[in-house]
Amino acid sequence: MAGVKELPDVESVVAARERLSGHVRQTPLLRHANLDARAGARIWVKAECLQHTGSFKIRGATNKISQLTPDELSAGVVAFSSGNHAQGVARAARLAGCPAVIVMPSDAPKVKLDGVRADGAEIVLYDREHESREEISARIARERGALLIPSYDDADIVAGQGTLGLDILDQAQEAGILFDHLLCCTGGGGLISGMSLVFERDSPATQLWACEPEGHDDWKRSLEAHTIQANRPGFRSFCDAILTPEPGVIPFQLADRRLAGGLVVTDEEVRDAMRFAFQHLKLVVEPGGAVALAAALRGVPDAMRGTKFCVVLTGGNVDPDLFAEVITSDA
Amino acid sequence: MAGVKELPDVESVVAARERLSGHVRQTPLLRHANLDARAGARIWVKAECLQHTGSFKIRGATNKISQLTPDELSAGVVAFSSGNHAQGVARAARLAGCPAVIVMPSDAPKVKLDGVRADGAEIVLYDREHESREEISARIARERGALLIPSYDDADIVAGQGTLGLDILDQAQEAGILFDHLLCCTGGGGLISGMSLVFERDSPATQLWACEPEGHDDWKRSLEAHTIQANRPGFRSFCDAILTPEPGVIPFQLADRRLAGGLVVTDEEVRDAMRFAFQHLKLVVEPGGAVALAAALRGVPDAMRGTKFCVVLTGGNVDPDLFAEVITSDA
Repeated sequence: MAGVKELPDVESVVAARERLSGHVRQTPLLRHANLDARAGARIWVKAECLQHTGSFKIRGATNKISQLTPDELSAGVVAFSSGNHAQGVARAARLAGCPAVIVMPSDAPKVKLDGVRADGAEIVLYDREHESREEISARIARERGALLIPSYDDADIVAGQGTLGLDILDQAQEAGILFDHLLCCTGGGGLISGMSLVFERDSPATQLWACEPEGHDDWKRSLEAHTIQANRPGFRSFCDAILTPEPGVIPFQLADRRLAGGLVVTDEEVRDAMRFAFQHLKLVVEPGGAVALAAALRGVPDAMRGTKFCVVLTGGNVDPDLFAEVITSDA
Repeated sequence: MAGVKELPDVESVVAARERLSGHVRQTPLLRHANLDARAGARIWVKAECLQHTGSFKIRGATNKISQLTPDELSAGVVAFSSGNHAQGVARAARLAGCPAVIVMPSDAPKVKLDGVRADGAEIVLYDREHESREEISARIARERGALLIPSYDDADIVAGQGTLGLDILDQAQEAGILFDHLLCCTGGGGLISGMSLVFERDSPATQLWACEPEGHDDWKRSLEAHTIQANRPGFRSFCDAILTPEPGVIPFQLADRRLAGGLVVTDEEVRDAMRFAFQHLKLVVEPGGAVALAAALRGVPDAMRGTKFCVVLTGGNVDPDLFAEVITSDA
């Protein structure tokens, strides 16, 4: 029974963590003096780019797929994604012994295509400009009787991603930290909305901020309007992992009551954050995964100076050519 | 009293860990399915490149400097190093409120020069071809009454680096792993000899292997001859962090009885390991820090198939131009 339609609650996240046991690792929470100085605050970086498959997406996918019935498992799953969800689904499916078809844009980063292939999933490419990935995926699901695994607008996916919040708060408790703020990049909002359930229960004083690239500030505007606002067409960003058209319905319903607001950064600030992570943290972070770090690096507002921030690095799946170009260009 | 001349023992390493408390982080022990497949063994990667200052060298430097008297601290310290020891000493000195002069080659990686400068140390550059860093350092020490902090041939330095072994075995115990082998890159041998003390006491069945770049196989030959063998002149390698002329006297005395042997890899294998760490582990590893991973990636001998390896990534201080060139070139 995989298709729960109601909103997840914090108990769903706790149950998801049980299912994820042995499938995810606890990624480190890192400090760096230089980062504190740049931000004007005390920063802990959650290096979730070190997660299996290179992003947090393995969490939701595993939570979803581990609940499938034997019949559903043999019919297989299908997903569409530019890459991180694709890899999460491919890995979770392989570990569950379940066939997977992933619908990916033909211009997806090669590292993400390779990751999906390495886990034995079948890839169906589509043309971003002229084809609908939703239609292609629906057709495949229909023809094969396969289950579509949504990338964020799904209670099980949201609950799975939310386990990252439990992980962060475990580490915070162990280190005796109470975070004043949490910065997290946001596309569809599966991760931040899932984490908001956890923080509401276990760390209600922490303010959660959705971080987005310029031109894709749908979350910021939606949170201000208390209703879902789509992105205006025509803006481009290189943060491929989080360029969703608008907040997911389930994520937004959860997050609207729980987030502090949105923060918007430029692509140039994201490039700077990737360089910082390379030079100082020794971490490979992809553009979409560096958005929250970018927000921290430009310095916190005066009212937040000296407060404690958790900054989530959500993924590290970036093609070498792009990464090389970013780290060798000047600020 | 900083200049203990006798050989360190495992108690020195345990005492060093007390002094390092709060100054080093526990870096993660990571697994990656693809790595197991390539190696033909079960591999745990110790990501010490995520350590403060980007390498394990902060351990020995902190152990040494934290034992200085107030008079020694105000007179300051001097060290020579191509970069990682330099950064470790600069950071440990700054935290102890002690002035530091670092003698570095004029062609040291810019990232290492920048790291030393950021910790407020004074840098004295020298010409690798025509000047002696030993003489320059000795003169500075004499003129200022400063204490020379050796990079490996020193009991306190060896004991400090050895704390990495305690850290690894803590994690192994927690995860219920008994390592059959440990692979670690080796220059002067401070790290592997310090760790050998720990493994002898706490995990005597583990075989420790010194990993080196081709042309710099002084450890392999010294271990075979049971006497110190220097590197032959004329060989070049891009593994700048570990190009020492021969094994240190103290490290070799300790290690000769305790290591299983040496493993030699080519620069091309090291480049491949750096690419692997970038693509799969999402870690930035410098050439010298990737030597042990290179040895694992070429596959273990048949007799070791399926056994459990710990592979240490010792540092991540690599210039962006070099890193970019490595990750964008084909295998």
